[in-house]
Amino acid sequence: MATPSPGYSVTIRLKTPSGYTVTSELVAAAGATGAQITAVDVVESHPESMVVDVTANTSSPAHVEELTAALGAVSGVEVEHVSDRTFLIHLGGKLEVVPKLELRNRDDLSRAYTPGVARVSKAIAEDKALARNLTIKRNTIAVVTDGTAVLGLGDIGPEAALPVMEGKAALFKQFADVDAWPVCLDTKDTDEIVMIVKALAPAYGGVNLEDISAPRCFEIEARLREELDIPVFHDDQHGTAIVVLAALNNALRVVGKRIEDIRVAVSGVGAAGNAIIQLLQASGVTHIVAAGRAGIVARDHEHTDPHRKSIAETTNPDNLTGTLSDAVRGADVFIGVSAPDVLTAEDVQSMASDAIVFALANPDPEIDPAIAGQYAAVVATGRSDYPNQINNVLAFPGIFRGLLDAGASEITSDMLVAAAAAISKNVSDDELNPSFIIPSVFDRAVTRDVAEAIVETARAAEAVPVGN
Amino acid sequence: MATPSPGYSVTIRLKTPSGYTVTSELVAAAGATGAQITAVDVVESHPESMVVDVTANTSSPAHVEELTAALGAVSGVEVEHVSDRTFLIHLGGKLEVVPKLELRNRDDLSRAYTPGVARVSKAIAEDKALARNLTIKRNTIAVVTDGTAVLGLGDIGPEAALPVMEGKAALFKQFADVDAWPVCLDTKDTDEIVMIVKALAPAYGGVNLEDISAPRCFEIEARLREELDIPVFHDDQHGTAIVVLAALNNALRVVGKRIEDIRVAVSGVGAAGNAIIQLLQASGVTHIVAAGRAGIVARDHEHTDPHRKSIAETTNPDNLTGTLSDAVRGADVFIGVSAPDVLTAEDVQSMASDAIVFALANPDPEIDPAIAGQYAAVVATGRSDYPNQINNVLAFPGIFRGLLDAGASEITSDMLVAAAAAISKNVSDDELNPSFIIPSVFDRAVTRDVAEAIVETARAAEAVPVGN
Repeated sequence: MATPSPGYSVTIRLKTPSGYTVTSELVAAAGATGAQITAVDVVESHPESMVVDVTANTSSPAHVEELTAALGAVSGVEVEHVSDRTFLIHLGGKLEVVPKLELRNRDDLSRAYTPGVARVSKAIAEDKALARNLTIKRNTIAVVTDGTAVLGLGDIGPEAALPVMEGKAALFKQFADVDAWPVCLDTKDTDEIVMIVKALAPAYGGVNLEDISAPRCFEIEARLREELDIPVFHDDQHGTAIVVLAALNNALRVVGKRIEDIRVAVSGVGAAGNAIIQLLQASGVTHIVAAGRAGIVARDHEHTDPHRKSIAETTNPDNLTGTLSDAVRGADVFIGVSAPDVLTAEDVQSMASDAIVFALANPDPEIDPAIAGQYAAVVATGRSDYPNQINNVLAFPGIFRGLLDAGASEITSDMLVAAAAAISKNVSDDELNPSFIIPSVFDRAVTRDVAEAIVETARAAEAVPVGN
Repeated sequence: MATPSPGYSVTIRLKTPSGYTVTSELVAAAGATGAQITAVDVVESHPESMVVDVTANTSSPAHVEELTAALGAVSGVEVEHVSDRTFLIHLGGKLEVVPKLELRNRDDLSRAYTPGVARVSKAIAEDKALARNLTIKRNTIAVVTDGTAVLGLGDIGPEAALPVMEGKAALFKQFADVDAWPVCLDTKDTDEIVMIVKALAPAYGGVNLEDISAPRCFEIEARLREELDIPVFHDDQHGTAIVVLAALNNALRVVGKRIEDIRVAVSGVGAAGNAIIQLLQASGVTHIVAAGRAGIVARDHEHTDPHRKSIAETTNPDNLTGTLSDAVRGADVFIGVSAPDVLTAEDVQSMASDAIVFALANPDPEIDPAIAGQYAAVVATGRSDYPNQINNVLAFPGIFRGLLDAGASEITSDMLVAAAAAISKNVSDDELNPSFIIPSVFDRAVTRDVAEAIVETARAAEAVPVGN
């Protein structure tokens, strides 16, 4: 059974007899189901009866039912109500659109709205660039999805994607004071999505593409980058790649290997795998072998997909063929962005000494991290309940904070590499160890440092004369 | 020269000699230019010198220059800086996207974002209707424009329209706690606009169309109403029509006429004119004559535009022809949503006794209200510097508050009529007089009453059995 998690936290309201015995019986009954009790609150107390709220983390909807039944089976106890705390905090949505200024009287209205606003509009009509200073474009990005590849849930549609995009927008604001707005599109047509995002662009200073399935995400990103004068970032690709590189930098510090020397096996050649391979190459990794569902990507295959073709042409210098196991043998680093349980203990044993294993499939990794840890020197996953969580929230808020502050019109590979370095350096030599290669997602210094790295890289790029 | 307005408020920072004399000289110099001083602040004071901020309402950019020169000409005074207060409050935009909950720790993250959010997304994927409760759709509307008919400025483009839409969104939030988001589209193509708004609709509980030029606005509204399951409201049409009807109800109370008996002349057959005519008809007005740039709209003309055709067929019972003057002669009510100075004093004199004149062209009305007031019993304009301002802000916040609260899927004529009545009744018999036929825009009761009227009308409509 999965570990109880606050994502499955419930509050169960019970009518009970008075007295001490009953609450300890309730705690025992809950504990017997494996639930983690986080609070027992007596809401009402009468001479003969009480109303008690039991709040507990559970592991699944079935576990909630089991817990509810167990509590209701305690002598004299009646279940009055079960509240799902996760659903409760989603009620009515998670975002508000709030004016920065109060409109209390006629004067406020005259300046913020008509007639005063007409002068601001006229100024922008004469010079569109002023929109960057005089409108929300200054600090606002669009979080764009079509709901086709949401979390591990797949193609669940734009309505169902909305709570995820709202959560992402909340993270942008809270971590980096970036105003982010969810744009959940009811179309999967590549041309339409490109057209729509272009039409929406005047109000935004950047576009974060999110949870759009491959290979459409590649074309959408490439076309929007080409046609828009604001930065376009596909978080599932580049956000993941940045945090993987940051963690890899530090894992290499742990084992004392140089990035130029390592052999890397990548499992998964979708959106994330592609971006990771490109960013590793931009960082000096020369020996990468990638494997998809059909095995190792090699030059002698016919690749109709241009991205697969590009991987075939730029990786696998020895032109290996075979399965993932063949790719992994002798490798210093395994990076999995693929599927549960595709890597075996034997595979890890076959790697070079001081092996590094990043098993990032979510929620179930490529290999049980406890098993990988028996043979590898460093293990990381995408999960929050193991050490070394590779979490994009370390990257995306600071990336866009930096892009907006720099007024950048595009995002470059140099920026991605600089962002990864900024994350890496937030683990000091004193802190660095095999279970701490990546900073906490709640480390505020990371966002600030990533933003600064982006701004510096943007300014340095501007300083380079045109043509160089 | 136009009246000084807070829309042209500036703060001029001056370095001056010390002492009392200089500030009175500054006030006198400013007053001589016609500026209205609203504040004189001594920011720094030294034995020999001071830094003084003079804040004043002016009437135009030229007036700002004149004022600056006049202040700089006072003996010993140097102008350090001129700040335009209207531009200052627009810096960085007027809206923020704010999370409703703080994400302080891992537990918060687990509930509001991954992994907890996956359960909410799954629930919505199974039943899309849940998005109304579990996402921002519950309380959020899109304010959609293509920037083609913004204020009196015309086709200024989506970037320049953005400050206006931000202001509108600010009003929605402040007056009715509706979260409104500006959607400024970089396309004027009717099909594209319809397609885009449909694709965006999953995240919104309603659509407010704004400042889209006629006749495209008619088709866009009609098609979106047909194809979307959320209400679509074109404020320039229906918002204006509601407030006109509300003001007309009360003007008729002042002069003691019944709406069924009046003869109405409408000048302007664009977006607003069309909607006003339709709403007057829905309220029982039978005798309307409309005039556009080409004169009275009559049946014997060939009308290619379907909206013009519809006006021709449903108005002008006597099939009058001629100019606006011919339409106005003998009318009880003039409603202008057209152009400056198209109505003469003679026209007003030719109207029935106790005439009502609504001259709503902005910023310059169809007739100077002071002149109209010499012959008419009641005069209203669109301007805030005359009594009886017809301002859409009396309608749109309450309209959408009510639509969202009712979970309405469309907006009906009955709702528009009910909203107008709710505004009218906020002027009590005691308050009613020729200079007070419409409540203040800052009267909070109006928004609440309009919202309640919408909710009641929506519920009553649902109670009607299908097929009736």
